[in-house]
Amino acid sequence: MTQITTLTRNEDGIGTVLGVLKQSFGERFQTGQSIREQHGHTTTWIENQMPDGVVFARSTEEVSEVVKLCAAHKVPVIPYGTGTSLEGHVNAPAGGISVDLSQMDKVLAVNAGDLDCRVQPGVTREALNTYLRDQGLFFPIDPGANASLGGMTATRASGTNAVRYGTMKDNVLSLEVVLADGRVMRTASRARKSSAGYDLTRLMVGSEGTLGLITEITLRLQGIPEAISAARCSFPTLEAASRAVMATIQYGLPVARIELLDALVVKAVNAYSGLSLPETPLLLLEFHGSEAGVAEQAETFGMLAEEEGGTGYEATGSLEERNKLWQARHDAYWAMVALRPGCKAVATDVCVPISRLAEAVAASDAKARELGLIAPVVGHAGDGNFHASLLLDMADADEVERAETFIGWLNDMAIGMDGTCTGEHGVGQGKRPYLLRELGPEAVGVMGAIKVALDPDNILNPGKILPA
Amino acid sequence: MTQITTLTRNEDGIGTVLGVLKQSFGERFQTGQSIREQHGHTTTWIENQMPDGVVFARSTEEVSEVVKLCAAHKVPVIPYGTGTSLEGHVNAPAGGISVDLSQMDKVLAVNAGDLDCRVQPGVTREALNTYLRDQGLFFPIDPGANASLGGMTATRASGTNAVRYGTMKDNVLSLEVVLADGRVMRTASRARKSSAGYDLTRLMVGSEGTLGLITEITLRLQGIPEAISAARCSFPTLEAASRAVMATIQYGLPVARIELLDALVVKAVNAYSGLSLPETPLLLLEFHGSEAGVAEQAETFGMLAEEEGGTGYEATGSLEERNKLWQARHDAYWAMVALRPGCKAVATDVCVPISRLAEAVAASDAKARELGLIAPVVGHAGDGNFHASLLLDMADADEVERAETFIGWLNDMAIGMDGTCTGEHGVGQGKRPYLLRELGPEAVGVMGAIKVALDPDNILNPGKILPA
Repeated sequence: MTQITTLTRNEDGIGTVLGVLKQSFGERFQTGQSIREQHGHTTTWIENQMPDGVVFARSTEEVSEVVKLCAAHKVPVIPYGTGTSLEGHVNAPAGGISVDLSQMDKVLAVNAGDLDCRVQPGVTREALNTYLRDQGLFFPIDPGANASLGGMTATRASGTNAVRYGTMKDNVLSLEVVLADGRVMRTASRARKSSAGYDLTRLMVGSEGTLGLITEITLRLQGIPEAISAARCSFPTLEAASRAVMATIQYGLPVARIELLDALVVKAVNAYSGLSLPETPLLLLEFHGSEAGVAEQAETFGMLAEEEGGTGYEATGSLEERNKLWQARHDAYWAMVALRPGCKAVATDVCVPISRLAEAVAASDAKARELGLIAPVVGHAGDGNFHASLLLDMADADEVERAETFIGWLNDMAIGMDGTCTGEHGVGQGKRPYLLRELGPEAVGVMGAIKVALDPDNILNPGKILPA
Repeated sequence: MTQITTLTRNEDGIGTVLGVLKQSFGERFQTGQSIREQHGHTTTWIENQMPDGVVFARSTEEVSEVVKLCAAHKVPVIPYGTGTSLEGHVNAPAGGISVDLSQMDKVLAVNAGDLDCRVQPGVTREALNTYLRDQGLFFPIDPGANASLGGMTATRASGTNAVRYGTMKDNVLSLEVVLADGRVMRTASRARKSSAGYDLTRLMVGSEGTLGLITEITLRLQGIPEAISAARCSFPTLEAASRAVMATIQYGLPVARIELLDALVVKAVNAYSGLSLPETPLLLLEFHGSEAGVAEQAETFGMLAEEEGGTGYEATGSLEERNKLWQARHDAYWAMVALRPGCKAVATDVCVPISRLAEAVAASDAKARELGLIAPVVGHAGDGNFHASLLLDMADADEVERAETFIGWLNDMAIGMDGTCTGEHGVGQGKRPYLLRELGPEAVGVMGAIKVALDPDNILNPGKILPA
């Protein structure tokens, strides 16, 4: 199969494109150092690789115009939402133009009767939910950050509600996409289901900007449940907590959220958010349904948790208490970082079949200890997905090396369990070698063939997902 | 973008391949007229286009061997499951080899703890559910026929349970696929969710054998619910029944099934299955959950149905009565055919946003009457998907022409409502022109580019989905 073009910097092309964009976008085209740095990678330990300029686009037509220009001069185009991705997705390894979509932030339509809406890619998940609240609707996908819906689509994001509501792949109905030659494609109708040819929607969801730039998203929405109840339960060990999760899923209990926090995270959260949770492994849960249904779910979970030694089980329908609990969960990242001032937090993201969860979490914990690393664990445990976040002193070369060993070991362990190296963060730059180990040369070869077919000059977010 | 190779019959290549297959497969390679006809298209009104020979494959290695041979001689390869598809999917417009996968019928693994299983493509949905029953598990997707799971995957099938459990796209975790050059690819791990590169699983689901031959399928399973209750409710008009469906979905009631039958279908079913249902539009429902949950759902639906003039509402937990009701629904196709002895039944398959359902069903009914056609309607109404099945006298050229007018009008109406011409049957040969109307040249062009990239000689089920 045809090879992906090797990444080299095209000085002449970039020079021309910078000149034209300055002319046509004026103040909405920026080339200052700090704005370019901010649009390069800013999270975790991957080196920042700045774009040469940043365009703030306001319409599909403008995005198309930029892509056509860059295509004519073979200059990379990197879409940018909020910059909260974790694997170097917005880096510009061969320079080029960052297309900042944050000003495309309009909710274009809400079809309450169809439980769907159409948004521009710069709308954030929190902005959408604020917009929807009056209509009794919500959008359930919630990655840790207040990410843009375009970025969430591009990285196939999920979060705490995925155990019940699925990931972005399950909640995007249709997309408008600017292709590598600047033409605009719509991937699907607004029908709830379809067999109309290749599933281009799902191909674009998770393609990380390498096959097209997403300019409109049609999303499925959910009615706000009649009743919501949150709960917490402490466990003597990580394994016991994980086993309670396994039992819950295997029982078929339709929990809306079931999040695992290890003892260190609970300690961090107590300190950061002023709580006084018992400092042992903890599950945080949420139940959605009718009043009676939620009560029944909470009771059933209590029974399953007790069998695994769960203690301090409390369910609450109070909005205030629920918010406090989930705010603490969402603050977990910053709480962990605060555990070791000045550290760099490097997230991992393995996901294993649920029957292997307890074994995987326990092994990960033991391995981190063995290597002398601080790696608190939080997990979207109901999906078999957990994050051991390494808190690193980047000045300590030996520690960084041990962290690299840990990450390789962890990813290989998950792959060996027929799991994945990335449940929700995506491949970006960081996980390219693991993708090959996980799926083998045939699947990665097919991905490469698709990339070459749709982007022959490799201008769309080059150097991500695939070897180049 | 590169064009798809035009379909022409390659006599020399076919001759060579026939000789080699006879040598290597012996009795498992057949070239008799009747077996070839049976492996060409046998449903609806599309002309039968026979393959030149049929191989009964027993392993992935054998499928790979056949594909390698056909690739070397540029001969078409058409995968065959049970032949129950409805748009000419198994036809061989340029001849070639039909690969019959019905002998690859083993359940390879059931991972009860992970709620998944791995099967060969020739396992039928009924065989799988029989196999699973002892373990308290089931696979929910149920197209009308007892189709093979390989065929269901290839056409992105759904059925009556899709409103609750989704379609094949939501229930396939991973695939093993033989590519156009005979290499074998695995698309994904067994993890419940993943962001590991392009979603090749979803690309293959619904690709109708044009991108690869599916040789293993890893499926999500469901626990058999603690309680199941079935119900029926009659309505004065099709619109009233449709409005009750819309209200149910908009309310967020998690019905497992909500099927619409028009008065003519009810009449047909009464005659065919010896029932005595009131001969007015009917909804058949099923509720899954806990005992209390199911009772609550049934009560809520009763309230919603009453507002639309629903009568004769009865819910039953009795297994025998449930089976009788659903057997009648599954027999609806044959019951309709029996309405007009000697007729050819031609199914349509539009799917519209749920808020347009009542309008679409009523307009379809009126249009059929206006054209003097018999077109009874059954629908997976909760998804906005309904089938008007034309009962045609194929000897009456004028009637056939009016039927063509109706189909074109119906598909265009659905597309005009931002719906699709095919909710679950697929494109095959029959719907290729409508695919272009629905999604436009950009999306169909991208599909073509992917096809050329993965199957440059157009040997995999040529002439399906895309223009050729």
